[in-house]
Parts: sequence; structure tokens; C-alpha cells
Amino acid sequence: MSKSISIFDTTLRDGTQGEGISLSADDKLKIAKKLDDLGVHYIEGGIPGSNNKDIEFFKRVKDLHLNAKITAFGSTRRKNSLAEQDDNLKRMIDAGVPAVTLVGKSWDFHVHTALQTTLEENLAMIGDSISYLKRNGLEVIFDAEHFFDGYKHNPEYAAAVLAKAREAGADWLTMCDTNGGTLPQEVHDIISTVSLQLSGAQLGIHTHNDCELAVANTLSAISAGVRQVQGTINGYGERCGNANLCSILPTLQLKMGLQCIPEEALSQLTNTARYISEVANVNMPVNQPYVGAAAFAHKGGIHVSAILRDSRTYEHIAPEKVGNKQRVLVSELAGQSNVLSKAQDIGLTLDPSSEQARKVIDKIKDLEHQGYQFEGADASLELLLREATGEVNELFAFESFKMLVEKTAGRPVISEAFVKIKVGGESLYTAAEGNGPVNALDNALRKALLAYFPQLKEMHLSDYKVRVLDEKDQTAAKVRVLIESKNFADTWSTVGVSGNVIEASWEALVDSMRYALLGQISQGNDANTEREPRGLVNH
Amino acid sequence: MSKSISIFDTTLRDGTQGEGISLSADDKLKIAKKLDDLGVHYIEGGIPGSNNKDIEFFKRVKDLHLNAKITAFGSTRRKNSLAEQDDNLKRMIDAGVPAVTLVGKSWDFHVHTALQTTLEENLAMIGDSISYLKRNGLEVIFDAEHFFDGYKHNPEYAAAVLAKAREAGADWLTMCDTNGGTLPQEVHDIISTVSLQLSGAQLGIHTHNDCELAVANTLSAISAGVRQVQGTINGYGERCGNANLCSILPTLQLKMGLQCIPEEALSQLTNTARYISEVANVNMPVNQPYVGAAAFAHKGGIHVSAILRDSRTYEHIAPEKVGNKQRVLVSELAGQSNVLSKAQDIGLTLDPSSEQARKVIDKIKDLEHQGYQFEGADASLELLLREATGEVNELFAFESFKMLVEKTAGRPVISEAFVKIKVGGESLYTAAEGNGPVNALDNALRKALLAYFPQLKEMHLSDYKVRVLDEKDQTAAKVRVLIESKNFADTWSTVGVSGNVIEASWEALVDSMRYALLGQISQGNDANTEREPRGLVNH
Repeated sequence: MSKSISIFDTTLRDGTQGEGISLSADDKLKIAKKLDDLGVHYIEGGIPGSNNKDIEFFKRVKDLHLNAKITAFGSTRRKNSLAEQDDNLKRMIDAGVPAVTLVGKSWDFHVHTALQTTLEENLAMIGDSISYLKRNGLEVIFDAEHFFDGYKHNPEYAAAVLAKAREAGADWLTMCDTNGGTLPQEVHDIISTVSLQLSGAQLGIHTHNDCELAVANTLSAISAGVRQVQGTINGYGERCGNANLCSILPTLQLKMGLQCIPEEALSQLTNTARYISEVANVNMPVNQPYVGAAAFAHKGGIHVSAILRDSRTYEHIAPEKVGNKQRVLVSELAGQSNVLSKAQDIGLTLDPSSEQARKVIDKIKDLEHQGYQFEGADASLELLLREATGEVNELFAFESFKMLVEKTAGRPVISEAFVKIKVGGESLYTAAEGNGPVNALDNALRKALLAYFPQLKEMHLSDYKVRVLDEKDQTAAKVRVLIESKNFADTWSTVGVSGNVIEASWEALVDSMRYALLGQISQGNDANTEREPRGLVNH
Repeated sequence: MSKSISIFDTTLRDGTQGEGISLSADDKLKIAKKLDDLGVHYIEGGIPGSNNKDIEFFKRVKDLHLNAKITAFGSTRRKNSLAEQDDNLKRMIDAGVPAVTLVGKSWDFHVHTALQTTLEENLAMIGDSISYLKRNGLEVIFDAEHFFDGYKHNPEYAAAVLAKAREAGADWLTMCDTNGGTLPQEVHDIISTVSLQLSGAQLGIHTHNDCELAVANTLSAISAGVRQVQGTINGYGERCGNANLCSILPTLQLKMGLQCIPEEALSQLTNTARYISEVANVNMPVNQPYVGAAAFAHKGGIHVSAILRDSRTYEHIAPEKVGNKQRVLVSELAGQSNVLSKAQDIGLTLDPSSEQARKVIDKIKDLEHQGYQFEGADASLELLLREATGEVNELFAFESFKMLVEKTAGRPVISEAFVKIKVGGESLYTAAEGNGPVNALDNALRKALLAYFPQLKEMHLSDYKVRVLDEKDQTAAKVRVLIESKNFADTWSTVGVSGNVIEASWEALVDSMRYALLGQISQGNDANTEREPRGLVNH
């Protein structure tokens, strides 16, 4: 038995069933290229003929000359008809791909309720469809829908479905936990029994995450003899999603010694996951295993001092193996060691015993005491540290801003901002509208700065959060604003604190632009002399 | 062997180690109350004495008179010292709780690297600390940190740690997969071996999600004989999070026949998860198993037609069992039964088959589709229901508001609001300053209303939260504002949604005042005819 596992990616088909996931043909082609770079063996592209995007995808993907096999998805022929006359099957063949995924029913309840036909006719539909596809020279992956539910209700019938598919020539028999309700032990027991009856057949697994067990069920299936895994990047998929390949690949490869993709490709996993989440325009949870921004982030003070001694104390793998990195979150619970390790991360040499180090640590502590929180604002922290070591990049001298929101009954709300700044000695006064006050401020500030810093065009704000810090003082309380910004390559977060949400937003906004231009603005711009010191503004 | 599992919630301690999770003492008390309603057996409140929030929590939680046992967390005594003179242990005792969680090392590597002491001294630290806590009348849950990694490297020592803790009188021996790198089969094998050596001891499990296996590892431990589960709501926790109780509870109870919490409490699980995510001000992933908004959402056309015939075709459990609902296409959260049950709660008679009921349910669905969320805004929901049954209490006819924020270098930021409304036929135009824009609006509106409704003097805003709803449009995205208000007797929450944070705040602000005056304003005030309809404002 080979010690390698075949990886079948269905991000482009089942993944798009997830809420909020919608991919254009261009998006699909970009993702297919990235999946191919990762080294997956099969890429399921969609359902040929179901919509224009999929038609265009199958047409254009050939020009990419990928190594992975592109597969097209479709159902067995309609009941009481001929495979040769089935439109769906014809479209799968016409897609011009080397392999197809054919889905068929294996739960008797579904045959009766959803197909409304007989158990015998369903078997004939499966057999006819596979034979026809095989006669057309295609590799056939047979997806037995609801296999585990089916097996629990009627094991003989579920087994007969697989036997029929095998007899008709299917290359892979994939058992699907379509509703995601099966437990790992059940998966293991059922496959162990079935694989005895199908000795020699190539078995696959397709799971869903409705019990938060899709990854565990996949591992369970592999330990019972399965050799192909269907899943999606970031676990995208209908309802709670499909099995997450970003968790399965490193576990199989780093912990179970099973070969899936090239080792150097594994170190591109984090980049792949983040790239695909960008293309899909979906937020990646920071706590996503292996590839999330917080997957190797340490907050507790005890943890931090231990990982500085030896990172294995609180890391189950070296983050670099999946292309991720260790992060130390600076929080009120932790102290000096966190700040110094962050300085090290960004390549600053900060002597722990120096006056410089003491000063910046005191400053950060003071800011945290005022309500700043840097664990969610890496970029603001980096700016503080760089300022401390003399790398200043103030973009402008601040003079004033005004922000007006006006609402009249029966008419849309209006937001306008007016910004007065000095850049390189030139006074600039700009006005702009926006969909909201922060958007108006962003627009007015950009208007002033773009002539000097055209790179700002490439960045945009991607998230905005407000938190009240002290509830006792009602709406007069201090607020903390966190802004996340993005350009094509990076994401960074900045923070602002004030009794005034607009002022706090302004502060985070300015930091986000300063960070975008780090290294591009020379030290010692005279502008900083007039800048309002952070955290020392009066409210 | 009992068929019930003890549930130990550590949302308030380990959960707060998650990136972006920061809870005030008030937040912690609210969450503790909600966890108690859910019926968990232990609530770990924090680390006594580590920070002011936790000190305040332990002081005030006694007044809530909860059924769950509150536990305080801390480490074994310092090396080469006496338990009786250990500050941490003293603080755990002084917290005044019935039970404590004591964490100790069980991985020899950690004893050497992190503690920098001998294996013998570590055993003495564990034994001394437990004996001391037991002598002070406390129930002791012993958390064996890194137990599985320890066992894999030095099984004799890891086992000796548990034996020592048991001998010293620990009530529970909890095995922790601190780094989250252990696989389900390993968990099962190790616990099966250990439990033979510790026959009769009460065993617990604490897992982390670094391989996306925290839930599976917990189930694996239970099948090997463990009887207590540590986890957090929504899986909050350091790095990739802790074991998610929202997935574990229903799986144990609905699929494995193990009793954890009352059945009627399980139907509050979705509400509990969403409430806690609101208090923590953290987005809940739509695809979260069991409790996510998409957990029972059906997008695929084939799936939808099948579930309309029989929902079991694509649902692994009936969503109502965990208080969630089926969603088809864009149909949103508000199921009819929830709305009707809320109406009943507030003493309204709403005939389910009436035109009145259909209309208000449709309206709520439409608002939810626009981004309103009523789980965290009971008062706004109540206002909608009372409006539907003809109890209208519009306070005024809205004409306009203006809001100005101005900041000049070297001077404090200024916020001013101007409000024009009509009350009882009288036109009022007021201006007020505030510490921030919402405070200024609040002040200007109060100035106008106080002459008519002096009771408003007794209420104030106590919390303010903003959430961006759609990341795609940066600062131009829609925002949801939640406002919590208080008077001497009550606390209530209201919601506003708009592309403009000021407009959304205004809406929530107005609702909070309307709610404060419920029952005091007579029906049929002509003011409502000119009020901007909620959710239909143009942006």
C-alpha cells in the first residue's frame, strides 16, 4: 500500500456553495493556478453548463496548462432515461477535461424522497452513467452522496451502490458525509467494513464540518484505508463548510508521515490560503489552524517568556514549515520581553538595558494604560518602535480637520470632511464627501496626500472596529478604534484612542497611511515637530 | 459509570487569551450569568490578583448567586519555597470561590526549560500546592499542562505527575493538550493506558484547536473514559482557540446520548453563543457548526428542493434543538416561532395566523437582511413588536440633525450637535456640545425632550459598540451600532444600522429613549407620521 495520499480540491465547486462565496471565471482561474502551484492532484472546476462562469472556466483553464487534473462535476442520468441522451452527462464530456466527478445517491431514503424512484433504478442510473463516461475515455471519480447516513440506515444498499459503481468502471469510490453529522469512530468502523468488501478498490473521502469534525473524519477515513481526500482551501463550503485542506495537508504530512504535496509547496500553504481568501474576498479567521494570523501568536506572559527560551514549549510545529510565523502579542498581561521580541521581529536592534529601550517600553505601557491595545495593531506598534530608534516617517504637519454629518428628514444623510495639513512646506486644504464620516476623512486626507505619495492609491481600509473602553461614562467614554488596511500584498492594523470616535479614527487612519509608506519616507521630515503627540491630546 | 459529563467553561480565563478578546469586569459578569443559565457546572472566572478586572469579577460574582461553581485559576507554588508563603496560592484562596484550577507541569522538557528546576522539585510543587489548597477546603481541579506531549516524551514522568496530584487530594485530574498538536488516536491510546493506572480517579480533558482537532480530541478522550470537559464558548482561546463547547455540547447530548446540560437549555445554545460574541465584540463566523447563521443555510438548488420535501435530507439534526433555524436562499434569522415567543415574553397577544403577525415577521426578516441583529438588541425588537400591535410611542417628529467634529492642532477636539424636532406640535431646535459625537447628539436630543419627558434624566448610555457588516466596501461599508442603556432598575439594548456610523448611532439612541418611556407615552402621538421609517433611510 502506497504511503501517499491523492489530494482532490473542490474549492471551485463545493467551496462556492458557502455563504458569501461568489467567484467569477477570472477568480476561478487565479485560484486554479494557485492550487496547481501548491501541488494538489485534482482540481474540481465546477458544473459544466450550469452557469456562464463555469462554461468560461472550462474553456479558458486549458490555456493554463496545469499539472493537476481538472475535473467536472455532475449527477447520474435522469431516472427512466438513457445515459447517451442525458444533457448533464453530455456537458461533462464536452467540458474537455480528463476526469469527472459523478455524484449518485447511496441512501435509500434519498432515493425515495429526493429522486422519487426505486432502489433498482438508482443502481441502473449509477451503472449506466459511469459506463457511458468511461466509454468516452474519462477517469471517473464516483461520489456516493450521504454514504454514511445511508450505510447506517441500510448497509446492504449503500454497499451495493459502491459495488455497482466499481463494476461499471469507476476509478475512485468516494464516500461522502454530505450532511456532516457522522462521528469519527463511525467513519472508521464503516469504512473498515466496506473496504473488506471492496478489496483493491481506490477509496476516497468527502466530509463536511457540521459537527466541527470534518478534519477528524478525514483522518479517521485515512486510518481505515482511504487514499484520496476531497476538501477545500480554508474549509469553504455549504453550511459549515467542507474538510479544510489547510489543516489536513500539514497534519498528514508533518505528523502522520503521509506524502501529499511537495515539501517546499507546504511552506507556501499560508500564502496560498491567504491569497485565495483575498480572491474570494472573505475574511480569514485569525485563529485558523496552521495558516491564521494568530495560529502561532502568544499572549500570556508565562507563555511568552517560555517561547523566548525555546519555541517548542508552546508551538506544536515550527510555523515556517507551513509558511506562517511566530508572533508575540503585546498585551497588558505581558511586559518587556514581548516588546523586545517584537523589535527583533522587525529587525530593530534594541538593547534591553538601554535608555532607549526603557523609554519606549514606558511609553507603550503608558499608552496601554490609556486604552491603546497593540495586540490587534501590529503596525502602530511597529511605528512606535521605529520612532524610538529614530526612524521617523511623519507624512505631514497637521493643522486641522472638520467633519460634518447632516441628516434632514426624507433625505439621505450627508458626510463631509475638511482637512488642512502642510506637506513639505506647502499648505493644503481639501474637502471631500464620503459614505460615512471616516470614509469622508479618508477621502479628504488622500486627496491632499496623493500628489506626494501616489503609492497610497494601492491601499484601502478593509475593516473598522470601535470599542468603548470605560462603560461608566456613557457616550462620553473613551473609545478605541482599530483599522485594518490592505494593499495587494499585505494587511496591517492600526489603533487610535480618544474620547471622540472621530479623533480616534483619524489617528488610526494616519497611522495606516504612515505604515503603508514605511521605508519610503526619509527620516527627519520637519513635519513631525508639529504633529499632535499620540495619546496626549486633550479631550 | 455515570452517563453524564461535567462541563467546565473557561471562556473567561483561557478564552480571553484569544487574539482580539478583551473583557471588562462587567462583560465577564454578563457572560457568567449567561453561562449559568446554560447550565454549565464550572465557570473559571480568571486569575485572581493578576489584574484589576479579575479582582473585581471575583468580588462581584458572589452577588449573582449562580448555580455553577466559580473557579479561580493559578499555578503551583514557586520552586524551592513553601506553599503557605506563595502569593499566587494565597490569592486563589482569598478569591472566596468553592473550587480552584491548579496548573502544573507534566512534560519533563518544560520542567527543565520553562521552570528551570528538577523533576523531583516539580512533583513537590504539585503535591504541596494541592495539599495546601485542600487544607483550605477547596475543590481542586488539577490541570496537567502539556500532558500528551509530556507522555509521548517521558510517559513515566507524566504518569507520576498525575499520581502525585491524586495522592495530594486533587478532585479532578485534567489532561491538557496545551499546544494542540496531538491527534485523536493518540489521545485515545494515552488516556486508555493512563486510566488503567488511575482506576477510579475523575479524569478531565482540555484541548486546543491547533490542528482543527480540539473537538475530536475531546470526544476521543470521553470515549477513553474522561468525565469532565474543559472548553470555551465559540472556541475562544489562545492561538487557534480552545475546544468549542458550542460544538461539543450538542454532539455529546444529541448524538452520543451523554447528559451535560438540561435539554431546554440546549435550545438556548445559539442564543448563548451569539450573546457572548456580542459582549466580546467579536464577529461570529457564519459557518460555525450548530450555532452559526449558515449552519443550516441551504444554497444549492438541489438541496433546497430536497429539504422542502424533508429537511432530514440535508440536515444532520433539527436546528431547533440547538435554537438555530433553517434558512433557505436569503431568508434570514428571524423564524416565526422566535418572534412569537418573544411577543409572548413581553405579554403581547399575537395570533400566529394573523395578518398582523405575518407583517411584523416579514418586517423583522427584512431588517435582518439589511444587517440588523436583534439577538443583542432586545429593546429594539420589543419596540417593533409593540408597534406591530398598535402600541406606538414615537416621542417626536424628526426634522433634522447636524453633527460637527472639529480638531485644530494644539487644541482639544470639539463635538457639537444640532437637533431639530417637533414635539406635540412645538418646533424645537437645540444645540449641545459633547465629549464625542454620540454624546453631543445625546445631549442635544435630551435638551429638547427633557421638558416633555423628565424621566429621561434617570437613564444614561452604558455601552456603545460598532461593528462593520460588509468588509468589501472599506469605510464605506454598513455599520451596526449597539447601544446599551441603564436606569436605576434596568439595562436594555438597542440597535441601529446605516452606511453612516452617526446615523446608525442616532437610530439606536432614539430607540433607547423610546424604550425608557415605554408605557408612559400614549398611543397615537401624531409625531410618528413624520418619523423616518427604520431601515428605509437612504444612504
